[in-house]
Amino acid sequence: MQVQAELIAIGTELLLGQIVDTNATYIAQQLNAIGLNLFYKTTVGDNAGRIKEVLERAHNRSQVVITTGGIGPTEDDLTREMVAEATGRKLVFQQHLMDQIEAIFRSRGFTSISPNNRKQAFIPEGAIPIENPVGTAPGFIVDDEKGVIISIPGVPSEMKYLMEKTVIPFLKKRFGLKGLIKSKVLKNSGIGESRIDHIIGDLIVNSSNPTVGLLAHVGQVDIRITAKAEDEATADRLIAEMEAKIRERLPNQIFGTDQDTLEGVVAEILKRQNKTLAVAESNTGGLIASKLSTTPEALSILKGCVTTLTEEAVVSLLGVPRELIREQGLASAGVAEEMASRIRSLTGASLGLGVAGILNWNEKQPPETPPTTFISIAGLGPQPVTEKYGMGGLASFVQTRIAMMSLEILRRKLINA
Amino acid sequence: MQVQAELIAIGTELLLGQIVDTNATYIAQQLNAIGLNLFYKTTVGDNAGRIKEVLERAHNRSQVVITTGGIGPTEDDLTREMVAEATGRKLVFQQHLMDQIEAIFRSRGFTSISPNNRKQAFIPEGAIPIENPVGTAPGFIVDDEKGVIISIPGVPSEMKYLMEKTVIPFLKKRFGLKGLIKSKVLKNSGIGESRIDHIIGDLIVNSSNPTVGLLAHVGQVDIRITAKAEDEATADRLIAEMEAKIRERLPNQIFGTDQDTLEGVVAEILKRQNKTLAVAESNTGGLIASKLSTTPEALSILKGCVTTLTEEAVVSLLGVPRELIREQGLASAGVAEEMASRIRSLTGASLGLGVAGILNWNEKQPPETPPTTFISIAGLGPQPVTEKYGMGGLASFVQTRIAMMSLEILRRKLINA
Repeated sequence: MQVQAELIAIGTELLLGQIVDTNATYIAQQLNAIGLNLFYKTTVGDNAGRIKEVLERAHNRSQVVITTGGIGPTEDDLTREMVAEATGRKLVFQQHLMDQIEAIFRSRGFTSISPNNRKQAFIPEGAIPIENPVGTAPGFIVDDEKGVIISIPGVPSEMKYLMEKTVIPFLKKRFGLKGLIKSKVLKNSGIGESRIDHIIGDLIVNSSNPTVGLLAHVGQVDIRITAKAEDEATADRLIAEMEAKIRERLPNQIFGTDQDTLEGVVAEILKRQNKTLAVAESNTGGLIASKLSTTPEALSILKGCVTTLTEEAVVSLLGVPRELIREQGLASAGVAEEMASRIRSLTGASLGLGVAGILNWNEKQPPETPPTTFISIAGLGPQPVTEKYGMGGLASFVQTRIAMMSLEILRRKLINA
Repeated sequence: MQVQAELIAIGTELLLGQIVDTNATYIAQQLNAIGLNLFYKTTVGDNAGRIKEVLERAHNRSQVVITTGGIGPTEDDLTREMVAEATGRKLVFQQHLMDQIEAIFRSRGFTSISPNNRKQAFIPEGAIPIENPVGTAPGFIVDDEKGVIISIPGVPSEMKYLMEKTVIPFLKKRFGLKGLIKSKVLKNSGIGESRIDHIIGDLIVNSSNPTVGLLAHVGQVDIRITAKAEDEATADRLIAEMEAKIRERLPNQIFGTDQDTLEGVVAEILKRQNKTLAVAESNTGGLIASKLSTTPEALSILKGCVTTLTEEAVVSLLGVPRELIREQGLASAGVAEEMASRIRSLTGASLGLGVAGILNWNEKQPPETPPTTFISIAGLGPQPVTEKYGMGGLASFVQTRIAMMSLEILRRKLINA
């Protein structure tokens, strides 16, 4: 039997756009790890009627309902009352919870407790209390024939502590959960989402365990393989089989997995091959340097970078002949090759990367044909190797896309892909 | 009559804990600005039955329903179909949407379109199409006797663009909304959140209209003033009065407002003062160049930048004497000044910015005393002016903080603050 779980976030502040709710992400990950799937997440304000309505529907359709927020001491904290109403119970005072709340206040240096805090020692009759040593709001679990409602605070640090210490162990025991979900992400750059969908669409549509899904970022597409299994070894095997199929169809596309970044992978390859790199970039505006600088290998592989947006800068910092630029244009294969060769010899790096394109800030009128950027690498052979890349759109995206494409071209050349 | 609004976020990835949903925050703010309150937010996976159920309930209880996500080209994008079903309509093909999708693909340099993308030109019969010039997924609005369902993409940049250009104007007209909430953000850099809280804490605690709130980012603290009023003029007056009080207490701190960025403000000042800039940076790894390159003034103010992480690079690209570095260290006032002066003379810029510090990737063992970075500006007077900045912590934060601090120091020197 598949246990259906859902999440209810309670608090008007969540609906006013004042805070970004990061709790859901954490709770979803924790539940996934024990094989529980979140089917719905509902956010509702501090309104008794709406909280009760949402709670009742959730309790009727899902065996596990987790609520966050609304269990503080103030008037608009209503979760406690509404869980009691939705499950037909009274609220009862728990002296041991009150003792704990008082102890917390004393440990924080308060000598008196606001009468409101007494409210936090009430929980629905028959509920299992969740003691909260890291805050003043205890949680509670109501367990009846429909399933469980687990109410914990919305403060992220308290929520995380109680999830780990109490909620997850309780759920594993209560529902005899052994199964688990494991995921692996295969990361791609230099290829669009719809192109990948075209190549592996049948695997996305026809696979149920593991499932395959796509997520597009600027300049990057992630393929996520998610397997459910009784044990880790089976999940790993299911993932490995699907990964092999996908890699067969995208032989050179996948640059890394899970926490890998494209710049991190490029830096590792350079380090492994004992190569160093210098970068001369124009319309990427320093983004390639900035990305590579955030890798742990930066100090040993990066021999220096220049950002030259204009003809003047290309001449003054790199010594590219002005006549060449006038003849071929700033965005040309000739200039990209000179940039790559010159930054390489200036710094003594084994490889030089030159990116020549024109920064276009006229976002209102995108050009008919996408402007071309030339990406050249010097030092791989006797002559620089150069590729073209046409890319238009919003300027901020264009910079990221071209920087990613440059790193991806470098990666492929380095591994001869 | 109060118009009730709700939001439905569609996508299994939102329930797996893979991404933090920041769209809700933005949409809630936008709706609040025109006096619409969000009563519910529901997140549901890519499952036809559940999407339809959630859509029907929302459409029955709320006059405004906004959905994000699920309108891409892939098989698991189901929003289009389910909105059609929930409102009893057929899907119809719209040639003008297809033309627009094809134009976007051409401008991005693709010569062929995947057949899947044709799906995106279908919308429910009678729906109002929302053209999407910044992405491939058009949105649509179904308007019937119960209210409106507005479906837009989940990609944040596209969602924001369409909210601003189409959805908000549509809602104002459709529901005759006049009441409004207005906000103004005062942006600060180079000063901590707790320090600002200390200076204007009484305004934060005691004000109800307008309210005053703080939001801290890496290297930046935003003060948000939010006023409610019947008309724009009253809201503007309430905000202006509070802004004057805050500016009196933070005379030189506030670098800009609302959509301003620190790099954008610095670029504008340089342009206004007819000055140009060249940058030589070490432990900021190209981030200063990259930030300045994203400003519309970049081509006219930025005369060239170098990123030199190592002694070798400082020598080879800038010609700083090796003895000076050996004597004073890479992170020293002397090296920062040489970097600033030399990048200035190499490029012929009116100002040179030199940032000298050591990249530290040993995140597990942060140093006892935060490492010092020296930030020097050449060209303001006969001698370079130099400031010190001690900053430790996670390396990725440190890069951003030092880049922001360097730009803030430059800003203050430029306006003599």
